[in-house]
Amino acid sequence: MHLFKKIFSKSRAQEGGIFFDTIQKILGFTPDTIDHYKRAFTHRSTNKLDAAGNPLNYERLEFLGDAMLSSVIAAHLFNQVPSGDEGYLTKMRSKIVSREHLNELGRDLHLIDLVESKVLTQHFGENIHGNLFEALVGAIYLDKGYIYCEKFIHNRVIAPYVDIPKLEGKVISYKSLLIEWCQKEKRTFHYDVFEDNGIDAQKFFGVKLSIDNKIIAKARATSKKKAEEIASKRAYFAFQEKINNK
Amino acid sequence: MHLFKKIFSKSRAQEGGIFFDTIQKILGFTPDTIDHYKRAFTHRSTNKLDAAGNPLNYERLEFLGDAMLSSVIAAHLFNQVPSGDEGYLTKMRSKIVSREHLNELGRDLHLIDLVESKVLTQHFGENIHGNLFEALVGAIYLDKGYIYCEKFIHNRVIAPYVDIPKLEGKVISYKSLLIEWCQKEKRTFHYDVFEDNGIDAQKFFGVKLSIDNKIIAKARATSKKKAEEIASKRAYFAFQEKINNK
Repeated sequence: MHLFKKIFSKSRAQEGGIFFDTIQKILGFTPDTIDHYKRAFTHRSTNKLDAAGNPLNYERLEFLGDAMLSSVIAAHLFNQVPSGDEGYLTKMRSKIVSREHLNELGRDLHLIDLVESKVLTQHFGENIHGNLFEALVGAIYLDKGYIYCEKFIHNRVIAPYVDIPKLEGKVISYKSLLIEWCQKEKRTFHYDVFEDNGIDAQKFFGVKLSIDNKIIAKARATSKKKAEEIASKRAYFAFQEKINNK
Repeated sequence: MHLFKKIFSKSRAQEGGIFFDTIQKILGFTPDTIDHYKRAFTHRSTNKLDAAGNPLNYERLEFLGDAMLSSVIAAHLFNQVPSGDEGYLTKMRSKIVSREHLNELGRDLHLIDLVESKVLTQHFGENIHGNLFEALVGAIYLDKGYIYCEKFIHNRVIAPYVDIPKLEGKVISYKSLLIEWCQKEKRTFHYDVFEDNGIDAQKFFGVKLSIDNKIIAKARATSKKKAEEIASKRAYFAFQEKINNK
C-alpha cells in the first residue's frame, strides 16, 4: 500500500514535471490533482476550453480563492482579537486581503513564472500577482479541501505577514522601534547584507542584524528594506520582555 | 462508552434546558459547547461581559457567520455553475446572502424567539432575523468547525432556497409555470390549505397541491403563498421530464 502510493505519486510527478515540483515546493504538500493548479496558472489569452466547452483559465478560481481567504482570515482575526468588534474585524480583514497585499504575496512567491499565456508577462498589470495568488488558493480548496486551504493561508499569509499591531497602525516600523531601543540602551547595532542573488527579475536579499556585535536575527526577502524589517521584528520579539520592562 | 456519552449529553441538555433542545432541533445535530449558541442569541442590550471583560453578545459572531456563509455559497456556486464567470458568481452569491434573504431565513427558523435582550423584541428592526442567522452560523463554526457549518448551510440555505434558474431570473414563479403546464395539458389542479396553526406571531401553513384530483406535492411554510410556491416547485421537478419532453 505504502509502496503503491509512492509509485503513484512518482508517476504523477513525472506527468507534471518541473511544474509539479515547483507547485509542491510552494504548497508545502503534495498535490493530488495537478490539473487544478495548471488551471490556476492558465491565462485567458490561451483561449483554452474544458471538455464541456467552458473557458479554461484561472478567473473563476480567483473568486473561489478570494472567498476562502476571507473566511480563513475572518476566523483568525476573530480568535486572535477577542476585544475587536465587528467594525474592527472588517477593517483588519480588508487590510490583509487588500489588492496591494495580495500582489505582494504573489510576487514574493514568483507565481508569474508559472503562468501559461499568449500575452508577454511584462505586459500584465500589477494585479496579476494577487490574482494568481487567489487562484492558487482556489485550486488548493478544490484539490484538498478547506483544512489544507486554511493551513496554506496560515503558513503563507498569516504567519509571515499578519502582524496585528502593525495593521492597527500602532507599530509603523520594527526597525525604528529597535533603533530607538538600542539608542536608549546605548547599544551598538548594524545591519549587514550577507546575500544578494544579483538577478534583477527575482531579487533576493539576506540581512543579518547584530547588536553589540552579536548576531541577533537573520532574514531573507525580496528587498533589502523588507529583509531589514523582518530581522528587526524578530529581534524585537526576542527582546520584547526587556523592552516592555524598561 | 456509549452509556457515558448518553449520560454526558443528558447532563448537557439539562444545563441548557429548552434552549438546548430548540437549538438541537434547528441544527439537526447535537451541539458540543452550548455557550457559543447562547452568545449567538445574546443581544448587546444585556450589557453582558465575558471573563476577560469583553462585551458578550452576538455582534462579532455575525462577522464570522457572514464569512462562512460567503465561502460555502461561493464553493457551491463554483461547482454548480461551471459556465458562470467571476461576475456571474459574484452576482449570484450576493443575491443569496442578501440582507433580505438572510432575514427570511432567520424569520422562518423563528430565531427571534431565542433572543435574550433588554429591548422588547417588537422594537427590533427587520435585520435582527438575518443578524441572528449569521451569528448562529458563526457559533456552529466555533462549536463544530467548517464541515458542520457547510452541512448546516447546505441543509438550511442551499437545499430549500438556492434555486439557480430562479436567481437568474429565468423562473419567476414555479406556481405560474405549473399552472401554465396544467392548462396546456388540460389537467385540473387545486391548492388546499390543510394546516394553519392560527398563531399570529408564528404563522404556519401546510398546502397540498393536487393535479387531476391526485395529491402531487405537500409543503409547509410561514405563508400560504410560500407554501404554494414550494409545493409547485416540488411538483414541477417531479414533472420536469414530462414538461421538457413536450
